[in-house]
Amino acid sequence: MTTVAAYAAPAAKAPLERTTIERREVGEFDVLIDIKFAGICHSDIHQAREGWGEAIFPMVPGHEIAGVVSEVGSGVTKFKVGDRVGVGCMVDSCRECENCKAGFEQYCLKGMVGTYNAVGKDGRPTHGGYSQKIVVDENYTVRIPDGLSLDVAAPLLCAGVTTFSPLRHWNAGPGKKVAIIGLGGLGHMAVKIAHAMGAEVTVLSQSLRKKDDGLKLGADHYYATSDPKTFEELQGTFDLIVSTVSAPLDFGAYLSLVKVDGALANVGAPEEPISLNLFSLIGGRKTLAGSLIGGIRETQEMLDFCAEHGIGAEIELISASEINEAYERVLNSDVRYRFVIDTATI
Amino acid sequence: MTTVAAYAAPAAKAPLERTTIERREVGEFDVLIDIKFAGICHSDIHQAREGWGEAIFPMVPGHEIAGVVSEVGSGVTKFKVGDRVGVGCMVDSCRECENCKAGFEQYCLKGMVGTYNAVGKDGRPTHGGYSQKIVVDENYTVRIPDGLSLDVAAPLLCAGVTTFSPLRHWNAGPGKKVAIIGLGGLGHMAVKIAHAMGAEVTVLSQSLRKKDDGLKLGADHYYATSDPKTFEELQGTFDLIVSTVSAPLDFGAYLSLVKVDGALANVGAPEEPISLNLFSLIGGRKTLAGSLIGGIRETQEMLDFCAEHGIGAEIELISASEINEAYERVLNSDVRYRFVIDTATI
Repeated sequence: MTTVAAYAAPAAKAPLERTTIERREVGEFDVLIDIKFAGICHSDIHQAREGWGEAIFPMVPGHEIAGVVSEVGSGVTKFKVGDRVGVGCMVDSCRECENCKAGFEQYCLKGMVGTYNAVGKDGRPTHGGYSQKIVVDENYTVRIPDGLSLDVAAPLLCAGVTTFSPLRHWNAGPGKKVAIIGLGGLGHMAVKIAHAMGAEVTVLSQSLRKKDDGLKLGADHYYATSDPKTFEELQGTFDLIVSTVSAPLDFGAYLSLVKVDGALANVGAPEEPISLNLFSLIGGRKTLAGSLIGGIRETQEMLDFCAEHGIGAEIELISASEINEAYERVLNSDVRYRFVIDTATI
Repeated sequence: MTTVAAYAAPAAKAPLERTTIERREVGEFDVLIDIKFAGICHSDIHQAREGWGEAIFPMVPGHEIAGVVSEVGSGVTKFKVGDRVGVGCMVDSCRECENCKAGFEQYCLKGMVGTYNAVGKDGRPTHGGYSQKIVVDENYTVRIPDGLSLDVAAPLLCAGVTTFSPLRHWNAGPGKKVAIIGLGGLGHMAVKIAHAMGAEVTVLSQSLRKKDDGLKLGADHYYATSDPKTFEELQGTFDLIVSTVSAPLDFGAYLSLVKVDGALANVGAPEEPISLNLFSLIGGRKTLAGSLIGGIRETQEMLDFCAEHGIGAEIELISASEINEAYERVLNSDVRYRFVIDTATI
């Protein structure tokens, strides 16, 4: 066991504070990663504050991890000391079910092992990226290509793959009109990636406050959803809408913007059930769908794609002592567009 | 104008009664059809009783029409006198929008012209199949192959294509596990067609009352949804579920029966909005979708498919004087599986 410094929430809704945690010994197929940067994802806050149900405390959040390999187990073949690597939302899964075998470890039938707020196969709680080191099985570790700086790469491990996966699955690309609902941590990645895929990209945001940013990030159009004319003008426009927000939406109104055979894919989700008239779907063979992060193979594809297209997250780099303040700012949508912790400051 | 006998609802919720209506002269591209049989679809009742909003009265329902061509316009090229033909839910559309051009006339951006309870391009109300004759543009008329009897073919024009279309679109076929919710007019067609497509078919019905029928129709398995064990046993089983019912379902429970990347496609729909937790979709990249009848080309494909596989509807043939009684029996789910009116009795 190795003792490492970390920032943890000692209990639900308590502020995060500096502490130490124990990391397991480096096993045969493990890599030890010196964490350099960890992104702050909205879901860190949901979990640290038990917004998604009972959680495990103390909790070290963080599933957008970028670092450098500092030790490898005897059986490791994919990585060597000094490699630049990332870890996302999961650190293990059953590896045997049809979904794991198909590369959809995130949909593991026995449940993936979350990077934090979960219990590992050794029976011990997992702890995430707000710490100086982490030990992870090589099969749940991905390579960060040389072209990507580690700080802007960290948020790709969740926000990047979460948006890349549905954009790829529902065929965003040349000739396709894609709308992104919300221009936050997820949304700004979705805009960059959809643009790089060659789609015509529209941002649907509550206001035009971030319009200049959106256009710079790669959007072709930017509409305020607070303006009812938006919904008149854009009727039947999009092949795909990706919703990155967790606010309850008028899904019927958004589905009216989708073409026949189009899809509205949700990567954000309100905690409460939504209300939907099924005629919104029937009247155009439309799809309401959801998507959860991506598998390990797809996460690697996403990183390679981002490196090829020069895509990183737009970040505000903070020190660990600013985490609690950053949480408040995330809740107020006051971040452009992702907080990343410099873990040297822990 | 030609005067023809028909059965019409004189007002919302009034019983249907015998009357006469005027059919337009046979235009250049029209066929005059001697209607032989007309199916009774649940949506006839919805509309005749204004369950779906304000309707046009007097109303001659009926959009499952099978008959024989008795006259053709000078420009007609597809049909000749004596041809066996069918007419489904629409008799016209704009023909110019992207959906019409793609063969999705049912999703016409200007709105398809319904076979009844609609207004035709001539500004006059349309009237449906509970009548002795109908005049229809040849482009909205389909051929009933010789192998199909007209009485069992009539319901294919709505119930057949409504279920064929999503089964084909979401790839029902060999190696696929398909569930059908509800074994009524639509459901029994869905079972026959999915079975003929080569899928492994499961019926999900409230009770086991119709189990013997379901297995005879081609189902491999039959489960009662009133039994909570059904939902435990079938977790993550299906590639596709087609819901043919209009009762409000627990969509989260049904989505839990769908595999990763699977779909729950609705062809029935409750009049009220449904409640859905989006995590039901996110947790497996699942699709909740809808589908509305099928285009004209697809309707022809469906008829050819049914003829090839010897598929007709299971019907109870009635005389026109029994229509009101039949409506009550449909509302009580007391029909195996479709009432068809012998229009010679009008």
